[in-house]
Amino acid sequence: MRFVSVLFSLFALPSLLSAQGTKPLALMPWPESVTLGSGQLPISGSFTVRINGDDKRLHTVAEIFLNDLRRHTGMPPLDFNVAEGARRGQLVIHSDHPSEEVQKLGEDESYTLVVIPSGAQLDAATTLGVMRGLQTFLQLVQMTPEGFAVPAVSIQDKPRFPWRGLLIDSSRHFTPVDVIKRNLDGMAAVKLNVFHWHLSDYQGFRVESKRFPKLQATGSDGLYYTQDQVRDIVAYARDRGIRVVPEFDTPGHSTSWFVGYPELASGPGPYQIERNWGVFDPAMDPTRESTYKFLDAFIGEMVHLFPDQFFHIGGDEVNGKQWDRNPQIQEFMHAHGLKNNADLQAYFNQRLEKIVRKHGKTMEGWDEILRPDLPKTIVIQSWRGQQSLSQAAQQGYRGLLSSGYYLDLMSSASAHYQVDPFADGVANLGEDEKKKILGGEACMWGEHVSGETIDSRIWPRMAPIAERLWSPANVTDQNSMYQRLDVISQWLDAYGLMHNTGYNLMLERIAGSDDIAALRTLVDLLEPVKGYAREGLATTPPTQLTPLNRIVDAARPESLPARRFQSLVEAFLAGPIKPGMESAIRTTLIAWRDNDVKLRPLAEKSAIVGEVEPLSQSLSALGSAGLQALDYLDRGEKAPQDWKQQQLTMVAQAYQPRAQVLLMVAPAVGKLIQASAGETPTNLPIPKSAQE
Amino acid sequence: MRFVSVLFSLFALPSLLSAQGTKPLALMPWPESVTLGSGQLPISGSFTVRINGDDKRLHTVAEIFLNDLRRHTGMPPLDFNVAEGARRGQLVIHSDHPSEEVQKLGEDESYTLVVIPSGAQLDAATTLGVMRGLQTFLQLVQMTPEGFAVPAVSIQDKPRFPWRGLLIDSSRHFTPVDVIKRNLDGMAAVKLNVFHWHLSDYQGFRVESKRFPKLQATGSDGLYYTQDQVRDIVAYARDRGIRVVPEFDTPGHSTSWFVGYPELASGPGPYQIERNWGVFDPAMDPTRESTYKFLDAFIGEMVHLFPDQFFHIGGDEVNGKQWDRNPQIQEFMHAHGLKNNADLQAYFNQRLEKIVRKHGKTMEGWDEILRPDLPKTIVIQSWRGQQSLSQAAQQGYRGLLSSGYYLDLMSSASAHYQVDPFADGVANLGEDEKKKILGGEACMWGEHVSGETIDSRIWPRMAPIAERLWSPANVTDQNSMYQRLDVISQWLDAYGLMHNTGYNLMLERIAGSDDIAALRTLVDLLEPVKGYAREGLATTPPTQLTPLNRIVDAARPESLPARRFQSLVEAFLAGPIKPGMESAIRTTLIAWRDNDVKLRPLAEKSAIVGEVEPLSQSLSALGSAGLQALDYLDRGEKAPQDWKQQQLTMVAQAYQPRAQVLLMVAPAVGKLIQASAGETPTNLPIPKSAQE
Repeated sequence: MRFVSVLFSLFALPSLLSAQGTKPLALMPWPESVTLGSGQLPISGSFTVRINGDDKRLHTVAEIFLNDLRRHTGMPPLDFNVAEGARRGQLVIHSDHPSEEVQKLGEDESYTLVVIPSGAQLDAATTLGVMRGLQTFLQLVQMTPEGFAVPAVSIQDKPRFPWRGLLIDSSRHFTPVDVIKRNLDGMAAVKLNVFHWHLSDYQGFRVESKRFPKLQATGSDGLYYTQDQVRDIVAYARDRGIRVVPEFDTPGHSTSWFVGYPELASGPGPYQIERNWGVFDPAMDPTRESTYKFLDAFIGEMVHLFPDQFFHIGGDEVNGKQWDRNPQIQEFMHAHGLKNNADLQAYFNQRLEKIVRKHGKTMEGWDEILRPDLPKTIVIQSWRGQQSLSQAAQQGYRGLLSSGYYLDLMSSASAHYQVDPFADGVANLGEDEKKKILGGEACMWGEHVSGETIDSRIWPRMAPIAERLWSPANVTDQNSMYQRLDVISQWLDAYGLMHNTGYNLMLERIAGSDDIAALRTLVDLLEPVKGYAREGLATTPPTQLTPLNRIVDAARPESLPARRFQSLVEAFLAGPIKPGMESAIRTTLIAWRDNDVKLRPLAEKSAIVGEVEPLSQSLSALGSAGLQALDYLDRGEKAPQDWKQQQLTMVAQAYQPRAQVLLMVAPAVGKLIQASAGETPTNLPIPKSAQE
Repeated sequence: MRFVSVLFSLFALPSLLSAQGTKPLALMPWPESVTLGSGQLPISGSFTVRINGDDKRLHTVAEIFLNDLRRHTGMPPLDFNVAEGARRGQLVIHSDHPSEEVQKLGEDESYTLVVIPSGAQLDAATTLGVMRGLQTFLQLVQMTPEGFAVPAVSIQDKPRFPWRGLLIDSSRHFTPVDVIKRNLDGMAAVKLNVFHWHLSDYQGFRVESKRFPKLQATGSDGLYYTQDQVRDIVAYARDRGIRVVPEFDTPGHSTSWFVGYPELASGPGPYQIERNWGVFDPAMDPTRESTYKFLDAFIGEMVHLFPDQFFHIGGDEVNGKQWDRNPQIQEFMHAHGLKNNADLQAYFNQRLEKIVRKHGKTMEGWDEILRPDLPKTIVIQSWRGQQSLSQAAQQGYRGLLSSGYYLDLMSSASAHYQVDPFADGVANLGEDEKKKILGGEACMWGEHVSGETIDSRIWPRMAPIAERLWSPANVTDQNSMYQRLDVISQWLDAYGLMHNTGYNLMLERIAGSDDIAALRTLVDLLEPVKGYAREGLATTPPTQLTPLNRIVDAARPESLPARRFQSLVEAFLAGPIKPGMESAIRTTLIAWRDNDVKLRPLAEKSAIVGEVEPLSQSLSALGSAGLQALDYLDRGEKAPQDWKQQQLTMVAQAYQPRAQVLLMVAPAVGKLIQASAGETPTNLPIPKSAQE
């Protein structure tokens, strides 16, 4: 047995192991240290797991692992019984200690995994570390010329940040239980450890309360989680090493509470579930004792459902208009010396924090709750950015970064990957202050996602964010990330996530046919508009009742084919030109040029395809223009200025949003055109709706 | 509003409605009578359902329908509340009577559905009929240039047979609960009404018994349904108008019972779960009172889980060897005048029938149980065929056809579609005797299917069998069937069935890559060997522990691309030649010829792809030979005899099974070759493993 030590380097990643003729390791998040061995451990039907340790929970963990391995290999139950104790196993898993009954922030998640051709050994301080190591083992399973196998390797690993989360907003659109579960599987696969569950907002109250049943009865359209379902999801998450932090947004973002309980509000009712998107006036009345009595009883009920130490009370975006209009509230403020609405909200937060603490929990909230009058135990989740976190840390508060990790803004994986909780405002903090930065959370806000589309909005872009929060800070190479992401994305398919399969199903439905080749050629190159542009570009403002079944909903947030084409064109124009480069570009351009003729019959039959027919014509025009540009370059002839100008106008036009989607290959064709006219290619102006 | 009456005709189907510029109706099973109107009813976000009738169950039925409609359109909840009573609805559903509390054999399932551009009306005698009509409505929903819509139409419909079932064998391989549920969704979509659940056999006992817990504890490898899960599935089926008939196979096919309770067996223990496939010796001891006491208590427990009137006791394939070898049994037979093992089994069946009857149930069993000493109430399920059913009917017994509907044999949809319960032996029965033939059941035996692959073995071939059992006897046109099947198959995707999406996922896993175009080109043209050939062709006999993750498991039972190519070649050779025919053939042949070069890198990396590399070479050779044949035909030159002979040898070779799969396009290329040599194309000899 020979181990080759591989020190981590920014550029070594893509080629790791490939020197030995096997595939590069597609691990994500990349571990702290990876040392390669020689040979491989075959994974066959007689693969067994042996548990070495006295944590009863290891048995469940091993069963889940074997089931995942089944999904990844299509093997029958690999061993009907997880071997325990003395029996020989191919993978021996050991933990020094059980993990905590209720998973705690900062529990040891480190592990060591050694694979040799005759077996594998996974050691961890706690069962949590075992879970993380098993996910690494799963990612190592490859199809080889000899069948499924794991390469010989030695890995030491531990997370950079203790809090690595994903927020799912189940209020604005309800997320079915099976969708939550498969996303928990995906979270476990990339070693995330916090599911932040946004359960109430203007547009829906999603948990059954037995104490206040009108919350779900009138505030949810019948779309809510029963208490049994909540317990089931919390247990499912726990078995995968994931804490569940509930968020009930207060005192704003709370219209759905008031449908059943208008007496909680600061303005007169009656209230209806909000169907529109935005920031609205309704807010809880912080001046009435009955509000706190209600919240005390409500939180007292909820803490039995959510065992996690943290309880998120929201606290964001109170516009204060209901408070301004309510004379009793104004009187109260005056009587209590509260100078403005921020003071009033601080008063509310202090009262609420005491209630949360009384029920044994630690309060968490968005940036707005930060005021020195709250105890230092609370945690600030920042949608504002590192500067805001830095201020919190300097005042002694712990914080989490969410700014830069908003998945609903349709940014590229690359953009999210560059966001580091320790950058910017945090960079200059002292070591002790930096320790207050617990990690980060990606946010999947729910305005424009349904149970059907949410997977493709979370995955695969969630994985690079997970890597940012787990892996060493110097793991930043974008090419390596994208290369591994391709494999991880496919691997997540085996976990039942629908980001890839759902895409085809949606296109088939949109086409009304399973003959979707031409439609796929187009939509593969489209992305939804970025940021909050979708709402501005809609002909009628989207609401909770707007169908999410259009091209903008099927198109992926990031077009990887467009990204690859752009890289190819840039490499071709920068030189040196390698064999195959030009023909690959030419073949692609021909396919685009000829695609519109194939798409048109579909566009005539389907209203939804019809919406993007102008983009299909643009793609065809881009194909033709690109081919002409290549021809000029081939002939060594400079394209005429007026032709160039005309084509660049067409390109700029093609890059404008239509039907709320963007044709992402326009800029690369623009560069070909510029180059054909003898100019140094520049970046085209990016339309506002394409700006990340 | 104008209605055009369309009398059903064999040839009218494919073009139905296309005269009006909309798509042909893709209904399956085809209704008894269809009358077309003009215009269409749009399905938008404001679509509502109004219930007109006092059956509380209609509410659940409408909710399920709206959820299905959501899956089919990607719309948000189409109406948050199903409208009741006076409120205006776009689809009004009405049933004269509730359906029975426990769904009964022969309940009225007829319905009338009228759609006009301003609304739709569904009327049925019972809520069961409403369920059937709603499925028809769903199949009518189409993507149109104006968005989703249902064409104006008037339909009267009722089933031809009252018993239309699917058997799923969850014993040989366990079927996870979610897989059962999505298959129940599929069954409902094609109006099946019986889920026959094969729950015990040599290889596994799959239901929790609280009375005899060793049944599942030792007989299931931990893979069994809890009683709560059974109740959940039975309720889920009931909500979709599907009866659940449990089968516990006795006295043979019962090894898994004996692991925990060896005293039930006729030979000495101990017993282990059987891992091999075939017919084995262990059988219950019919001579001991303790056997009947056990079965009495067991059935007494099970009848509380399975409310259906029928209780299937198996009764097939007792080889009698344990009985022959047991002196006490021989003595018993002598003492009771039982001349042979058939007599002994008949004695067992009589005793068992009394127990089943005592618990309020009607006994059902396979052909072998048929003996005149059993009461006329029992139902015979025939794996032997119509002749056997005819004999049963003549003796006054009711029967079901399963022969010809075995989905595990990998026959074509067309072969199954031709099997009619009223054909052959039954055709000459009198009308009253014919009424004893209740219908049929397709059987999904479980030797070579897992939860991952079962969908693609059941679907889409189940749909034409469902049509055979529901639609008028004269609905037999194969072309129409295949044309509609394409649409229905895609529509079943929306129900979450994995027969299409799972195929891609398996190929990606097999390739270890998402670049599967070349692999798909090949596997699209492959079919698993037919009948029971798979076991004979295996290098080691397959068992319950054999991985089901190979090409033979991914390949569909029927290659529709191969079928289409064959039709195209035959049409081309028969003439008159239409524009595009030859170029379509040529393009296809070129793609085949060039595919092997693309596949080879995958085959080198993946052990599983490697298995079919010889077939890839054959495909390439077929492509080349076909192109040469076309060239001869183009030039009007006769291909030389020796070339022809050589090529036909190659074709015959290409048609031989490898890795338990068949390359289905060989025969069509053979015809091209024969024609190019100036011969009338004949059918190639079909290898034994390709015979249906």
